[in-house]
Amino acid sequence: MSLSIDFSKSMVLKKMEISKDKSRKALNTLLEGTGEGNDFLGWINWPKEYDKDEFDRIKKAAKEIKDHSDVLVVIGIGGSYLGAKAVQYALSPYFTTNDVEIIYAGHQMSSSYLKELMDYLEDKDFSVNIISKSGTTTEPAIAFRFLKQMLEDRYGKEESKKRIYATTDRGKGALKGLADEMNYESFVIPDNIGGRFSVLTAVGLLPLAAAGVDIDALMEGAALGVKKYKNLDFDDNIAMQYALYRNILYKEGKTIEILANYEPKLKYFSEWWKQLFGESEGKDGEGLFPVSVNFTTDLHSMGQMIQEGKRNILETVLRIKNPKHDLIIEEDPKNLDGLNYIAGKSLDYVNKMAAKGVAQAHFDGDVPVVEITMDELDERHIGELMYFFEISVGISGYILEVNPFNQPGVEKYKSNMFRLLGKPGYEQK
Amino acid sequence: MSLSIDFSKSMVLKKMEISKDKSRKALNTLLEGTGEGNDFLGWINWPKEYDKDEFDRIKKAAKEIKDHSDVLVVIGIGGSYLGAKAVQYALSPYFTTNDVEIIYAGHQMSSSYLKELMDYLEDKDFSVNIISKSGTTTEPAIAFRFLKQMLEDRYGKEESKKRIYATTDRGKGALKGLADEMNYESFVIPDNIGGRFSVLTAVGLLPLAAAGVDIDALMEGAALGVKKYKNLDFDDNIAMQYALYRNILYKEGKTIEILANYEPKLKYFSEWWKQLFGESEGKDGEGLFPVSVNFTTDLHSMGQMIQEGKRNILETVLRIKNPKHDLIIEEDPKNLDGLNYIAGKSLDYVNKMAAKGVAQAHFDGDVPVVEITMDELDERHIGELMYFFEISVGISGYILEVNPFNQPGVEKYKSNMFRLLGKPGYEQK
Repeated sequence: MSLSIDFSKSMVLKKMEISKDKSRKALNTLLEGTGEGNDFLGWINWPKEYDKDEFDRIKKAAKEIKDHSDVLVVIGIGGSYLGAKAVQYALSPYFTTNDVEIIYAGHQMSSSYLKELMDYLEDKDFSVNIISKSGTTTEPAIAFRFLKQMLEDRYGKEESKKRIYATTDRGKGALKGLADEMNYESFVIPDNIGGRFSVLTAVGLLPLAAAGVDIDALMEGAALGVKKYKNLDFDDNIAMQYALYRNILYKEGKTIEILANYEPKLKYFSEWWKQLFGESEGKDGEGLFPVSVNFTTDLHSMGQMIQEGKRNILETVLRIKNPKHDLIIEEDPKNLDGLNYIAGKSLDYVNKMAAKGVAQAHFDGDVPVVEITMDELDERHIGELMYFFEISVGISGYILEVNPFNQPGVEKYKSNMFRLLGKPGYEQK
Repeated sequence: MSLSIDFSKSMVLKKMEISKDKSRKALNTLLEGTGEGNDFLGWINWPKEYDKDEFDRIKKAAKEIKDHSDVLVVIGIGGSYLGAKAVQYALSPYFTTNDVEIIYAGHQMSSSYLKELMDYLEDKDFSVNIISKSGTTTEPAIAFRFLKQMLEDRYGKEESKKRIYATTDRGKGALKGLADEMNYESFVIPDNIGGRFSVLTAVGLLPLAAAGVDIDALMEGAALGVKKYKNLDFDDNIAMQYALYRNILYKEGKTIEILANYEPKLKYFSEWWKQLFGESEGKDGEGLFPVSVNFTTDLHSMGQMIQEGKRNILETVLRIKNPKHDLIIEEDPKNLDGLNYIAGKSLDYVNKMAAKGVAQAHFDGDVPVVEITMDELDERHIGELMYFFEISVGISGYILEVNPFNQPGVEKYKSNMFRLLGKPGYEQK
């Protein structure tokens, strides 16, 4: 197993060599905990130092959920939604459901969505995993109010308590208070791990375990990442290289980074990546704007823009060496579709030749292309890849000279909203 | 019914007034057919002049499909995928399936996806709608080769012919030849309507009718658009206004346009919009890069970047006045989550206050915000909205001085891919 990276079409190989000390310095700041936001570095050693007893409780809870529920509704927003969704979607079948169907809620405020969800749950046994540090974040709190009521109406007050799993603060906050009072099984969101870095804590692990993901392997992959990407030797650490490459190009006017894949199972992984990079770097009037594309689909929509539009784009590609399934294209005697020239080839081979052709075309069109390859799309590689991106964004944020661990701008719309809704304390703002 | 638009936070109201003649001139060029790409203007009067006999055949075919199939596999890519998916997703329930389940294929080359789809179809009755002008586009041609074989193995050669619906060129091409030979029911992709403008032709209409969408109402909405948006009076035509606003801001350094919604059913509508604008404008080193966000979800991922990142963003918001379903938030005696201040309010009201708070916050953060409101999320409004965006992009492309109706860059990766795959005729390139 391994991740590898190909910088041959990055257009900045020499510049990377010259300025590699910048990346080393940033990683050093991160590892020594001397930079801004250093009270949120708990994720760095987490894959090795996580709470093993809680981990066992998570597996036990997942088994319980499988035993008594058709559906687990996971209520959370931002980092309490995107990480679990990313991994679950990457590792689940496209057209069938695992033992337990995972449905997300409280990640927006569509009344149609919540009403239709409640109708759907009418004839299903279900449980709820409410994920919120405070318990008062508007979106999840509203969804939880409705679904908790539904559970109590359906199963009675006592039985419903066994169907609610709370992932929240260790000691304080509204949800922690409720969980203690009601005796919900509960799990911890560590104080020193921000939302977008929380996928490998109970935040992501409980929904993933319920979905049938091998969370031991996921943690093993991340632990391998700890071993590989804390390395201060630039030439031997692809996270430092990736962080530097994107910053050099950003300074040269590439203001949009596209994360591309050729396997739609990675669609929500890219959404997770967008939060990780967008929220970490988009501040102080700076930041490479993260965008995701799913190829070859989006070559037939955004492909023209990438090939010949404004030259402000750099492209990072996620590749999978060995596909989960493959199919051989057969000879057709009539060959009306003209495909016989690839008869005998596998579909994955054709997909890979498309990827190769695209990389060359975009490079020729002045779009730098860097490819990250994982051997398999499995728990170990996803775990390592997530850790790789997490440490990369920490390095990258420090190179950019922003605090990669806060998100002050997210509060602004909330104060406006609270004022409009008449929330006590927000009247005068 | 109506669409309305609010430019009060556009930051360019005065500039729009000064340069409105630019927009009028562009629309005039479009309507007179004197600009570049004028052999692809068939969509302009299509909602009034479409083939009514074919339209009836589409409805008949949809009924047939409902009678004999659990699943309709729609094979197409680009405009032969995104339009149908956009409308179907916008108008379908979240958690249940209509009479016929619509599954898309041939819109990428994931071998895992196609293999898992074929496994899923093992115990289902299904039909195929293959949509391809030429019949030789790689992605759909491969998927069709596999699924046609599967139909023939399952139902026999004769019966399978009745389960294949071909949407293709009127007279030429590989798929047209096959359809004639096999006597497939077939429908026309008009010569003068490009892929990204084709949703209201048989390309979109057959899958949509099968999905239970009221295609009469969809066409009526678009026909209302024809009436409203061909109007050369700038003050009375919001399509001209929208086209101009985005171009003024683009010239001022806003290089990214975000299309935001507060109802996730619009998620794939935004994907359709991205193709429409990205492929029409991304050429000659120009073009506003189109991005979609789903709020409030993405306020907790891309929100920080939009609020405080690089100031190169403009935001267009799709709003729905009356939600399909709504829920009232009830009082909770304990109020641990602190939500009682909104007890008695509806969830949609809270969602709308969020939208209002966000617009103000982004505007305060130097992001121009323009809001487009539709009264209902239904066929009529979607039809009008699609036509609105189609005519807007025509005007916008001419203001930008690019040909909005071609896509030369899409060919580049294809030639590379064909060379790598050893396709005859591509060896030397």
